[in-house]
Formats: sequence, C-alpha cells, structure tokens
Amino acid sequence: MKAVQLSKYDQQPELVEVPEPEITGPLDVIVRIGGAGVCRTDLHIIEGQWEQKSGVVLPYTIGHENAGWVHAVGDAVTNVAVGDPVILHPLVTCGLCAACRDGDDVHCAGSRFPGIDSDGGYAELLKTNARSVVKLDPSLEPAAVAALADAGLTAIHAVRKAAAHLRPSQKVVVIGAGGLGHIGIQVLRAMSAAEIIVVDRSWEALALAEELGAHHIVRADGEQIDAVKDLTGGNGAEAVLDFVGEGGAVEDGVAMLRRAGSYYVIGYGGRIDVPTIDIISTEINFVGNLVGSYSDLSELMVLAARGLVTLHTARYPLEEFASALHDLEQGKVRGRAILVP
Amino acid sequence: MKAVQLSKYDQQPELVEVPEPEITGPLDVIVRIGGAGVCRTDLHIIEGQWEQKSGVVLPYTIGHENAGWVHAVGDAVTNVAVGDPVILHPLVTCGLCAACRDGDDVHCAGSRFPGIDSDGGYAELLKTNARSVVKLDPSLEPAAVAALADAGLTAIHAVRKAAAHLRPSQKVVVIGAGGLGHIGIQVLRAMSAAEIIVVDRSWEALALAEELGAHHIVRADGEQIDAVKDLTGGNGAEAVLDFVGEGGAVEDGVAMLRRAGSYYVIGYGGRIDVPTIDIISTEINFVGNLVGSYSDLSELMVLAARGLVTLHTARYPLEEFASALHDLEQGKVRGRAILVP
Amino acid sequence: MKAVQLSKYDQQPELVEVPEPEITGPLDVIVRIGGAGVCRTDLHIIEGQWEQKSGVVLPYTIGHENAGWVHAVGDAVTNVAVGDPVILHPLVTCGLCAACRDGDDVHCAGSRFPGIDSDGGYAELLKTNARSVVKLDPSLEPAAVAALADAGLTAIHAVRKAAAHLRPSQKVVVIGAGGLGHIGIQVLRAMSAAEIIVVDRSWEALALAEELGAHHIVRADGEQIDAVKDLTGGNGAEAVLDFVGEGGAVEDGVAMLRRAGSYYVIGYGGRIDVPTIDIISTEINFVGNLVGSYSDLSELMVLAARGLVTLHTARYPLEEFASALHDLEQGKVRGRAILVP
Amino acid sequence: MKAVQLSKYDQQPELVEVPEPEITGPLDVIVRIGGAGVCRTDLHIIEGQWEQKSGVVLPYTIGHENAGWVHAVGDAVTNVAVGDPVILHPLVTCGLCAACRDGDDVHCAGSRFPGIDSDGGYAELLKTNARSVVKLDPSLEPAAVAALADAGLTAIHAVRKAAAHLRPSQKVVVIGAGGLGHIGIQVLRAMSAAEIIVVDRSWEALALAEELGAHHIVRADGEQIDAVKDLTGGNGAEAVLDFVGEGGAVEDGVAMLRRAGSYYVIGYGGRIDVPTIDIISTEINFVGNLVGSYSDLSELMVLAARGLVTLHTARYPLEEFASALHDLEQGKVRGRAILVP
Repeated sequence: MKAVQLSKYDQQPELVEVPEPEITGPLDVIVRIGGAGVCRTDLHIIEGQWEQKSGVVLPYTIGHENAGWVHAVGDAVTNVAVGDPVILHPLVTCGLCAACRDGDDVHCAGSRFPGIDSDGGYAELLKTNARSVVKLDPSLEPAAVAALADAGLTAIHAVRKAAAHLRPSQKVVVIGAGGLGHIGIQVLRAMSAAEIIVVDRSWEALALAEELGAHHIVRADGEQIDAVKDLTGGNGAEAVLDFVGEGGAVEDGVAMLRRAGSYYVIGYGGRIDVPTIDIISTEINFVGNLVGSYSDLSELMVLAARGLVTLHTARYPLEEFASALHDLEQGKVRGRAILVP
Repeated sequence: MKAVQLSKYDQQPELVEVPEPEITGPLDVIVRIGGAGVCRTDLHIIEGQWEQKSGVVLPYTIGHENAGWVHAVGDAVTNVAVGDPVILHPLVTCGLCAACRDGDDVHCAGSRFPGIDSDGGYAELLKTNARSVVKLDPSLEPAAVAALADAGLTAIHAVRKAAAHLRPSQKVVVIGAGGLGHIGIQVLRAMSAAEIIVVDRSWEALALAEELGAHHIVRADGEQIDAVKDLTGGNGAEAVLDFVGEGGAVEDGVAMLRRAGSYYVIGYGGRIDVPTIDIISTEINFVGNLVGSYSDLSELMVLAARGLVTLHTARYPLEEFASALHDLEQGKVRGRAILVP
Repeated sequence: MKAVQLSKYDQQPELVEVPEPEITGPLDVIVRIGGAGVCRTDLHIIEGQWEQKSGVVLPYTIGHENAGWVHAVGDAVTNVAVGDPVILHPLVTCGLCAACRDGDDVHCAGSRFPGIDSDGGYAELLKTNARSVVKLDPSLEPAAVAALADAGLTAIHAVRKAAAHLRPSQKVVVIGAGGLGHIGIQVLRAMSAAEIIVVDRSWEALALAEELGAHHIVRADGEQIDAVKDLTGGNGAEAVLDFVGEGGAVEDGVAMLRRAGSYYVIGYGGRIDVPTIDIISTEINFVGNLVGSYSDLSELMVLAARGLVTLHTARYPLEEFASALHDLEQGKVRGRAILVP
Repeated sequence: MKAVQLSKYDQQPELVEVPEPEITGPLDVIVRIGGAGVCRTDLHIIEGQWEQKSGVVLPYTIGHENAGWVHAVGDAVTNVAVGDPVILHPLVTCGLCAACRDGDDVHCAGSRFPGIDSDGGYAELLKTNARSVVKLDPSLEPAAVAALADAGLTAIHAVRKAAAHLRPSQKVVVIGAGGLGHIGIQVLRAMSAAEIIVVDRSWEALALAEELGAHHIVRADGEQIDAVKDLTGGNGAEAVLDFVGEGGAVEDGVAMLRRAGSYYVIGYGGRIDVPTIDIISTEINFVGNLVGSYSDLSELMVLAARGLVTLHTARYPLEEFASALHDLEQGKVRGRAILVP
C-alpha cells in the first residue's frame, strides 16, 4: 500500500510502497484511512524535534489525526465491524492499568501514539486497536472530522472541565480563536450558558468567533486586559481558556481572571510565572489540559453529528502531501488541511 | 480438578471431578482458588430462584466471591503474572462498551458473572479475565479477603457515594450491622469524618459496631426513630445507609432523614413507597446501589492491607462445602464462611 | 393602599383598603408590586387546604410570585436602592442558620413565606427583606417575569441538578410541558447539550415544546414508554424530569429510566412506589426538588435577560383579580395570569 | 477597657485604656475576648508592611485570631446569645453580595477584617457581627481554639478541596509541618483515607507529624524529591499541600507531583514558575487557597470538639503581650502564643 514515510530528519518525507498491516492480536483493528489531518506537529517531527521524545525508529509513517473505515478486525473486537466509519483516538491504550480502568485513557501507563512513535495515518491503512476506534454517525464523513481527533479532542477536554463550574451569569474568556480555539468556542456554546469573550489578534479570527457564537470579541491590540475588565464589571472572568500559551497570552490571561477564577492552560510555549502571594490572595487556580479521553471523543462526535461543531477543511490527495505540508508552513491553509488517500 | 457442581435445582450440589479450565483467549486468566465465600445467594441458586434470571445450563460450579493465586495467563495479560495473589471482581466485563470506557464496569453491556451464570469458585481453579483480577498486597491472604469481593464491594460502593457529601458535623445512620453493614461502618470511618449512628435489632451486632468505630448505637426496639431524632437534635440524619431494605427498615430509614438528606438503598426485599409531596417538601433523595467497580475493589483492598477493614471468617475445606451451606442456613456461621480448596 | 385579602376560607377574597407596610428593621425592603402571578396554590389557599400548614391568621393578602420596584429600604440594605426593578425570592430567610450560610436558603431554619404565611403580593406594596430581592436587568419588566419567581425557580433548580450530570450523548425526558415544564425545557436547552424528549398528553403543549427546543416529542397516548425506549436505543433515558408527579406519570417515568439513571421528582400528587430490588438491580436514583435558592433565581434572571427563557403572560388589573382566579380555575388562561396593580 | 494599640509603625504597641465598643446595629455582636492568637502577621503589621494594604488609621487594636464569650448582641441576632462561647471568623462579611449568598464568605464584596483594618482582639472586648461568630461546644475553651480562627481555618479549607479527590490508594504530600501544616495533617487524617507523607527540615516537626498520624516522614535534606518518588512507586503524589511556599518548597512540590496531580498553594513568599509545556504534558494543576468560609470554621470546631484536631498553646496575660511578640520573633514559642485578657 501507499504511505508517506519519513526516512531521515530534516528531509522531506516520501510516498513509498509498504506492506499492508496485518491483524496479529485479537483486539487489533485495521482502518482504511478516509482522512488524515496535517498538523504543525508533523512539521516539527520532520525537523527532528520529536526524535528524542518519541524514540521512533526511521523510516516510519507520520499522521496522528485519523479517521476512516474499519478494514479488518481481530477475534475479540466487539465494538466495531468491517465497514464501519470511525475516528481514531490518538492513543492506543492498554485497558488494564489503573488510569485506563477509571476512563482516564490519557494517563495510561503503557500507551502507543500512532503517527508519533509508530506508523500513523498518512497512508492507505493504519493498524490500531479496538480501544481507539469511535464509531461515527452515518451523517459524518471521515475526512470531515479527522482533524477533530486531536485538536478538537483537546478543546472539548478543557471545555468540559470549565463548563462543569460555569453558570449563566459568569464569563469565560477564550484566548486564541484559531484551530483549537474556534472548536472550543463551539463546544462552550453547546455545553454551557456562560457568556463567551473571545480575544485574538486577528480580525478574521474574531469574525469567525462571532459567527460561531461568541458573545463579545476583543482585539488583542494592547488594551485587551482593560477591555475584558470592562466587559466583566471590572471584576475579570471566572474562567480563562488559553489556547495560545505564549507571547504574552499567559500574563494577559492571569490579569483577566476574577477572584477565585480558573485559568485553563491549553496552548503552550511560554511559562506560568506568578508570585504565590498573588495566587493565594486572589485564590486563583491553574488547570493543565492534555488531549481528551475516549469518552470525550465520543461526546465530540455526538456534537459534530448534531451540527454543533463544524470544521473548515482543505483537502489534498495523499500524493500531494508535500503541498499540504508546504501550504501549512506558509500559512496558506484555511481551516485544517486533510490528506485523502 | 475438584469442583462443587449443581446438577439439579432443589438438590444438594456435589463434589465432582471436572476438566481443568484452559487459556483460550489472550486476556484469559486462570486462578487457583485460595478462598471462596459462601453466600446466601448460593442457597437461593440451589433452590432455583435464579434459574430464570441467570439462564445458566446445569451442571455448573457455584461460588461468586473468589480470591486466590494466578495459575495461568493469556498472551495479552499485562497486569498480573503467574503466582500473584489476587481477588476477583465479581463481573467479567467487556472493556469496550461505553460504561466500561468510563470505569463503570458494573453497567457493562456484555458482562459475565462467574458463579451465577457460568462456572464459579467452589473449585480448585476458576477461569476469568485480566479485567477482573486485582493484585493483592503480600500482607493479604486470599482466604481472608475473598468475601470482600461481593459483600465488601457493595458496601464500599455505597459508602463512597455518601462520603462524597458528608461533612464532620453531619450524621450518617447505618441500618443493619450484619455482613455488609459491619464493613460499611469500617469504610465510613476510613473515608469520612461524619458521626456514625448504627441501628440494629441485635445487641451483639451493635457491640461489634461500637468496636468497629460507630459513634452511637441504637437498638431497633420500636423506639429507634425517636432515638435517632434525639441524637440529631431533632432534625434527622443527612444520610441513611440501609443495608436491610425490608421489614420496616425502609419506613424507619425515611423517617430518620433530615431535610435534603439522602437514603442509600443497599439491602432489598421491601419497597420504597413514599408520597411525592413528601419527597418534594423535604427535598430528600433515594440512591440505588449495586456492587462496586474494579476501582472500588482496588481501593477496598488498600484499606484491607492497611488494617482499616477486617472481616471475621470461618473456614471449611472445599470437601466440607455441605457443612458450610448447612451452617449458613442454620445461622451458625460467625462472620463469613469460606471454602478453602 | 389596595390589597386583595382573604377574610374567610371558602369565600372569595376581597379588594380592600389596608395600611401601607412600613420599614421597621434595617434589612427591610418594601416593594411596589409590578406584577403578581396567579397560581393554582392561590385557589387551594382560598379553599382552606393550607389553613393548618401555613397557620396564617385571617385576614391576610395572598400572592407569592412577585416582582416590582423598590419603594423603601432599611438602613442596612446595600444590595438594592429605591427605584430598582426587582423580583422576589419566595422565601424571606434568616441569613444566619447553617443552611443560609451555605447558600441553601430553601432549607433556612426560620423562613417566612409572603403570600402563604404572611402578607403577599396581590397588593400595591409588599414588605420583604434584602435577602429576597434580586435586581432585574433594565430590559426585564417586572410583570413579565413575576411568575418565574416560583414556577420558574423550581424548574431551574431541578434542571441544574440534572444538567450537572448530562452529557451531549445522553437523553433527558421531560414529563409535562405545562407551566413549569415549558420553562424546564428552555433552561435545559441553555444549560446542557443533552437530547431532550418531551412527553405530554396535549398536542398543543408538545407543539410549544418543539418550538422551545425539544429534540423529540412523544404524545402520552398509552404507548409513551415504548416511544421513549425507541428514541433511546432501547435503553431508556439517563434522566427523567417529572413535572407532573401523579396520574401514571411516576410509573411511566421509572419505566423510561436507563440503568444508573436519575428520576427528578418535581410535580406531586402521586407516590413513588418501587420494590427495592428494582432500585438496586438497575442502580437508579430518585431526586427530590423544592423551589430554588436565591442564586438559582439570579441565574434564571440572567437567562431571561438574554432571551433564553420566556414566558407567556395574560395580564389583569389588580381590581380584576376575581376574573383571573376564575379564568385559572376554568382553564382559560393561556400561559400565566398576572395581576398588575 | 484595656487594649493593645499600635500608635506608630515600627514602634512597640502599648496597653492603653480605650472606650468599650457599643452595639449600634441590629446584627452587631460584642465579644469578651477569651484568647487572641499572636501571629507572625502581627509582627509584619507593626513593621508597617500592611500600611498600604489595610489602609487602617492609627491608633488601632491588633489581633485577628479571636475567641471568647458573647457580651452583647443587637436586636436581630438569632444565632448566639449573651454568654455563649464563640470563635470568630476572621472576616466580618456583608451577607448580601453574590459571594456571601453562595456561602463563599471569603470573597465577600464588602468585608471588614478586625485586627487588620479595624480594631481586633488584643483587648478585653471586640465588636463584630452575627455572621462571624461560631458557637463553641461546651467542651472547648476559647483560649484553646482561638488560633484555629485563622491558621486552622486556612488549613481545613485547603484540605477540604484536596480530600474531595483523594482515594485511599493515593498519596498526599504535606510540605511543612509547622503552625498550619500540623493542623493540616490532623484534618487530612480525619477527612480522607489517603496516605500522608510529611516533608520538613526539622526532625522535631517530623516527630510531631508522625505522632499526629503522618504515614511517612521525609526530612528535607536535599534528597526529599527522591524520597517521595520512592514512597510513591516512582510516580509522585496525587496531591501536594505546600504550607511553605518559598525557599525551594515550590520547585520541590512540583517535582513531587504525579501526572494529573494537584499542587495546593497555601504558604507564600516564592513564585510558581513552570513552563506551560510541563503543565500540559503532565496535566497538573495549581490550586490557590485563602482562609476558609464560615462553614469551614464550623466544621473545624466540630473536629476540635471531637478531639480530632488539637493545638499546643503557650498562654500570656494580655499585659505581657510584648513578651509574646518577642518570644514569637525569637522563635521561642512552642505551638501558638495566646493572649488571655
């Protein structure tokens, strides 16, 4: 079958012919890829930034946001059947450790991450297991939702934590209405009645935010802290979801918090650097967020099937993977680039 | 191997020679039984009360409270190894349905129940899977904890729900300090700081309750509602854990509740029969409780290993199963009867 | 001032001239009534059904769903000023008991209930205290929201409890789309992403339910249990909010519950009568609901100000109170009757 | 009456004769002081560190950890009567703002802080209001519990948040077994079944920790991170309660956290300074903690009355306030210094 493999760091991957994966274990599932998201992390992998961390042996197939149709299953697979449309949770988890037994897949003591540390979805077929496949509603096309597997899953995971505390009278600030943030806004609208204030540097992103249901938009033009204070009666917001995490966003976000408010760390790159006296005197919290669980992905697919979460995609044939990567690097992709084999 | 099988309803089971179970699937685990609890449900099974409900085909081996040592494992088992001491969660669950994915094993869409609907633990060996085995601390002997697999697991499950709401200033009533109740008292002491009031008909049970940490004991002599009111400033208790569930216990329990209190249904036999006006005007709740999850069992074993939950056992060789069943029926067992192969 | 007073049970109240209430305590607030809801409970009071329960001394002014403008305040009142539009929490609470200190006003150890046990809002002025007044957004007219003070407050209180557990993939059944139920549907839409199934006997009520955002409607024609089962994959719903509570609604509601589901008792008249074995084997819960807290009312007013909760009202001048009561009794009121002084 | 007043910053306060406070409002309560805790904050106030922050006008009476007996009450006070033994919540709150209405007194929009911004408890009488007085069990002597009013209240507040998540199998690290920490250990023992690991530089503090119920003690000798890792199977602890907050404690605490763990900021002085990538890749949380609510103080008094929380005190007559302050400054006080008028 065809697959896009990385043979050497800092060198363009290549479309090559590789053997098809085979069912070897009873819980194995092989998926015919319908769409694979092209993500900034793929660029970082090619540059070698993940070499140490993943420990993967080259050559291997990249691509970690995948959806498609079930192609083959092991003996013990009971949750999907050949032909079912599915989206793939990014991790292949063990199911037996304490974290897995509590539904906290992300902290599985023995997980594998296709596209990062083993063969991923820039290919015709991908091998995963029964624990990673979420069956799609017939109304959802795999290529249309593939990018929700990672970016969307991170957004819903953070929003679920915040929504559990947000009341209608409260305000939530979303910093960054880009790839993750614009999904976060949609999930917030679906799961809470709080007022949403979106902060971004780009008027285009803010226009999209408003269209998706933001109650207030604030341009990050240097006056954004004051603007948020004005929108919150001078008090600040009960929650800040920071999808940026660098370049001043953290300092902004902390300054926008109300007493007893919570700051959700989602984007990364910068530092949280706050005197402990400020944390205790205002009693604020910082909440870390990684990708969501299998259940989070199932819920996200329900929202997608009901039209409550949508995603703009730019599709490329698998063969044109290099254009997709190039366009992403150049900032030319509107929405999310998807490879379709 | 030797096993106690039921061949015909309403007839004594018999000790027979049967083939040893074999590993056929990758997640299979075969356990050498160290102790099998003898439970009132076993008497009901023999009488045929479970015939319809379980749909089991006779002959089969009974025994649903089991612990022992791992004897053999399938290829994919990673959480235990041959020789490990283990206790068995009563259900063999699928691991793939929505309930299992959330850690809510008990509501698994496709579980099996050894000792009820398939071969159980009145035998030398029992076949289960990797998802049902909890590894024991070396300090715990399988025969000493076997009966916690079902009775204890039900108690901790209910207590966990209650303890999540109970404050030190609040009162919790335990109705029935028998098999389940006396474990419930110990778990309450470990997991909450609320004051515990135990109600029972037997002075002996009440003496044990006091020894295990009950703050107040109340004999169910007809004046128990008034006694609980007196102990709660006339208000009633914030929680009632009813381990009896029949014979007036329900009416008592409801009358002992404070406004906005919660009644945990654990024992059964009677009915909850309350006018809706009484439920809304006092804003009380009724909380159903089944056996606990795998995580609940893991936590219970931690408490047992730390000496915070203990159980009195009366041991019988497997061959003397008939005496054990007879003694149970005659009310002659102190604590819990355990068969040891 | 003018007030509608009840002088004798089973006799029509009369519009009489009474002295204006005066500020006597520092937290007193006198409200000029802008609208007073006419409720079925008022009919029951007139019939004498509340004589024992309220212990009120006749004559007194009825009316327990009130909104208006602040007319005078005591020295220590800091949360409202003369002229502010306000809605009144039904209870005048002490603020010092343990329940009040936890924000659980409804279980205040020493509350007063204007319109039930002291002078209410069928009048030009009403005396309450600072703890019962919620300031209204300028966009909200007191007469338009008065009926939310009791009916709406009960609905949001129950919905908040349910919404805390409901996920997008889950289903919630609303039994009864009448006065309370149709507010419940709107609050559910605002506060959760679960799918809403509304069951009612009336096509008109179901049509309104659909307009307000119900995802599915089911006519209570004898086949309603099967219809709900069909809509829930044969499993039943995770939550049932029963706004009826009598005449078969309870039995229906219990039969519509999924394993581990919760039944919210809101309407009343019938009984919860279920064998404990059924409660434990399915692990279901029954949750009592009374009127909401001050915070619940504040949140409801936020939803109303944002247009997310609306109410149809039929207004009558205070002098025509007898027509309003008559129309209510005859079932001729569309929406909620409001007296406007 | 006699009172210890500060007339000028950086100068010793003086015992002077001042007029007795008088009841002027209906919710006023005047308390005859039975004990006033001498706290490091008092030293900071004298040094002028709080001048800006409190804005208090000199001269005034210091002392913010107070308990005693009710001496006089306003007309509207219903929760205490003259003669009742009471402990005082540190804040005098309004009772009408949104935070107060939710039981979240600490974030009251208009509170007063006796001993900090108005006359405190180094005196014979103190004026507060009905919302700050918690009635004591007859078994508790005011002088014995006064220091729980602030230090203890902070400890229980943080522990309550942590205990809500801690299971028996989990580990909680307490950094610092001094004034607050040793109360924290006792509250943890009462409210959770998790294993407690205490880290401190002083063997004496560690010995006390062990006596109070710590399961493991670790000397902060440079190897403390490794020691905690060893005690947690290499994983780190699910919760870290940092009662120190400076001098390397923060870095230690973060390093001791397990994936998805929570770090409770209680002590202060240093900074939280962590790259956002580390927060998201391990999904850890930072939880700010201020003093507790009125309900927290009520619960703490219940634990004290049951002997579950004890405090070592060194008592000084009010006249010897200077010795108490001096001994505190010199590190000569064992336990907590208490002034007794």
